[in-house]
Amino acid sequence: MFKGRVEAFSDGVIAIIITIMVLELKVPHAVDLSALRPLIPVFLSYVLSFLYVGIYWNNHHHLLQMAQQVSGNVLWANLHLLFWLSLIPFVTGWMGENHFAAIPVAFYGGVLLGAAIAYYILSRTLVARHGKDSALAIALGGDFKGRISVVIYAVAIPLALFVNAWLACLLYLLVALMWLIPDRRIERNLQP
Amino acid sequence: MFKGRVEAFSDGVIAIIITIMVLELKVPHAVDLSALRPLIPVFLSYVLSFLYVGIYWNNHHHLLQMAQQVSGNVLWANLHLLFWLSLIPFVTGWMGENHFAAIPVAFYGGVLLGAAIAYYILSRTLVARHGKDSALAIALGGDFKGRISVVIYAVAIPLALFVNAWLACLLYLLVALMWLIPDRRIERNLQP
Amino acid sequence: MFKGRVEAFSDGVIAIIITIMVLELKVPHAVDLSALRPLIPVFLSYVLSFLYVGIYWNNHHHLLQMAQQVSGNVLWANLHLLFWLSLIPFVTGWMGENHFAAIPVAFYGGVLLGAAIAYYILSRTLVARHGKDSALAIALGGDFKGRISVVIYAVAIPLALFVNAWLACLLYLLVALMWLIPDRRIERNLQP
Amino acid sequence: MFKGRVEAFSDGVIAIIITIMVLELKVPHAVDLSALRPLIPVFLSYVLSFLYVGIYWNNHHHLLQMAQQVSGNVLWANLHLLFWLSLIPFVTGWMGENHFAAIPVAFYGGVLLGAAIAYYILSRTLVARHGKDSALAIALGGDFKGRISVVIYAVAIPLALFVNAWLACLLYLLVALMWLIPDRRIERNLQP
Repeated sequence: MFKGRVEAFSDGVIAIIITIMVLELKVPHAVDLSALRPLIPVFLSYVLSFLYVGIYWNNHHHLLQMAQQVSGNVLWANLHLLFWLSLIPFVTGWMGENHFAAIPVAFYGGVLLGAAIAYYILSRTLVARHGKDSALAIALGGDFKGRISVVIYAVAIPLALFVNAWLACLLYLLVALMWLIPDRRIERNLQP
Repeated sequence: MFKGRVEAFSDGVIAIIITIMVLELKVPHAVDLSALRPLIPVFLSYVLSFLYVGIYWNNHHHLLQMAQQVSGNVLWANLHLLFWLSLIPFVTGWMGENHFAAIPVAFYGGVLLGAAIAYYILSRTLVARHGKDSALAIALGGDFKGRISVVIYAVAIPLALFVNAWLACLLYLLVALMWLIPDRRIERNLQP
Repeated sequence: MFKGRVEAFSDGVIAIIITIMVLELKVPHAVDLSALRPLIPVFLSYVLSFLYVGIYWNNHHHLLQMAQQVSGNVLWANLHLLFWLSLIPFVTGWMGENHFAAIPVAFYGGVLLGAAIAYYILSRTLVARHGKDSALAIALGGDFKGRISVVIYAVAIPLALFVNAWLACLLYLLVALMWLIPDRRIERNLQP
Repeated sequence: MFKGRVEAFSDGVIAIIITIMVLELKVPHAVDLSALRPLIPVFLSYVLSFLYVGIYWNNHHHLLQMAQQVSGNVLWANLHLLFWLSLIPFVTGWMGENHFAAIPVAFYGGVLLGAAIAYYILSRTLVARHGKDSALAIALGGDFKGRISVVIYAVAIPLALFVNAWLACLLYLLVALMWLIPDRRIERNLQP
């Protein structure tokens, strides 16, 4: 039950984040198809961020599924993750409205990087709480996907600034697709 | 409990969707009745979408009520449904602000069609998980209402574009009324 | 658990309604006290509506507390109540921005009347489900406060339109204060 | 379960408060770094308020964790706390947009003071319900941190108005950091 409220609060915050992003899709005043054209990049950035927030919810769900107990440190590590996720609507809107220009794309990557690090801290805090031999620690293992994501974001940010913003977006999409496959490590472990 | 968090997250997202639509009803600056006149189509589209989102929540509630377990696939099928539902406030505002013009009405139907297909995929994913002889599979049966809804949307979209947008709206209303009757198939099945 | 999700969804919608009303308190661009003056009526209407939504949540909480089971009819009666409550932010903003002018005050009363009737229907639907001899039916009794509220709203609306809008507001406040006292009928009944 | 719904509703409201604050970070139309400069004070005030709302959620979590039962009075004391918290996005936006000017900073402190008093009332109402010898009463003890916070806010408000707004902000930050350390009194008490 202790754990339950952390999940409920996180569900609430993530549900609001994933939904208010759609408010950036401002209702156009004209009725023809051309009125939708300026919304296309905003829509594409919405889809990408919906994927990301959905992935974070899925992984958060799997992670806490395995946790037996939470501590004060876990609460703060969790709020730290929610902080970075709460910035996603802002960078999504900025990136979408400016047709994936270099600086907004780099900031988008920066927020993704912050969220990835926060997620890593949260999972390590939970492992510290449960012990290195706990099911959770074993299921997480070396967390290859988490590490490679951080590396890709760290590559994508300078790529956006100095080479090509679209290449960075492609990398963001790549990471998303990599995570779309649900965390089989944990799911396998949950099987009896 | 595993299932519980999928329900909680879906409840959160659907609750936000159904509530932020009302933000499209912009507070008028004048105080006479005529100030409300331009809001009438926005209000009507709000009522229609409130009905639809309410119906989806009701059906989602009934569907997951019967599910015993969820998998990674179910999580993603569920997020896919929430994605389409999250677009409803946008098309509702666009349709309402433009007095049910042809193109916005067709897009509204397109989002309803997407949501209907996503709901169908979700229910099939759950059936695949529970087996063809499960109570859930038997209760859903051939899913007549789901199929006929998809057909009606597919008819309504070209109708809106090439014949009359109001006819399409009438069809949307018809589908809503058809669903207002809660899913007796499942409810009957839940009776001991 | 069946009941649990109706509560969770209602909690979500009511939580959003009570919170988005504060968005009508637009951040002023100036920093002196006079910049807050135009916000005073908006703030007062926010406080009144916060009270009302809080009362509805409290009563909804007490009502469902006593319910043993919900049906398709209950789901729809509940959505009907949420529909009226979802209109409160709109009428609150309209009334507040126009310094409690006659027509917005009358509409505010109209929404309160709609919500009161919807709540009455919900409680009767629950009584019908549980039987006239159920604890819920006995605890609700003749529902004196519910009836008198409807009468007061019905008086306040023409009063706002044809006599004085402030008198109507006073009546709304009176009803709110009457309800602030939590529903002792039910609470007494819950004691062992 | 009675207590559960109070927690769920509070989680919902606090989740929305913590998330809608980010909407004050308006998406800039330009793409260079200088476009972000006017957002820096808004961002800083967002971080401070995120900390505060996070602290309130954490403490609320710990407080209700120890409660065995809730009463009508507790429901209202809780709504009173949520009311003050709901004003945080408004004062955050006002303070941030005006670069921490004296009057907005004083109002920010006023809302923090109101929330602190409301939290104190809530904890006393819970103590009254559970008895002076209850685990909750013993864990709360003299509530030193709660009292000192109220004193610091009461000092910070005139400081902002008559001396220096930044000093007041520093005091707000100090209180936040003091609370960041989770309420060990209660956590220790929860250990078996």
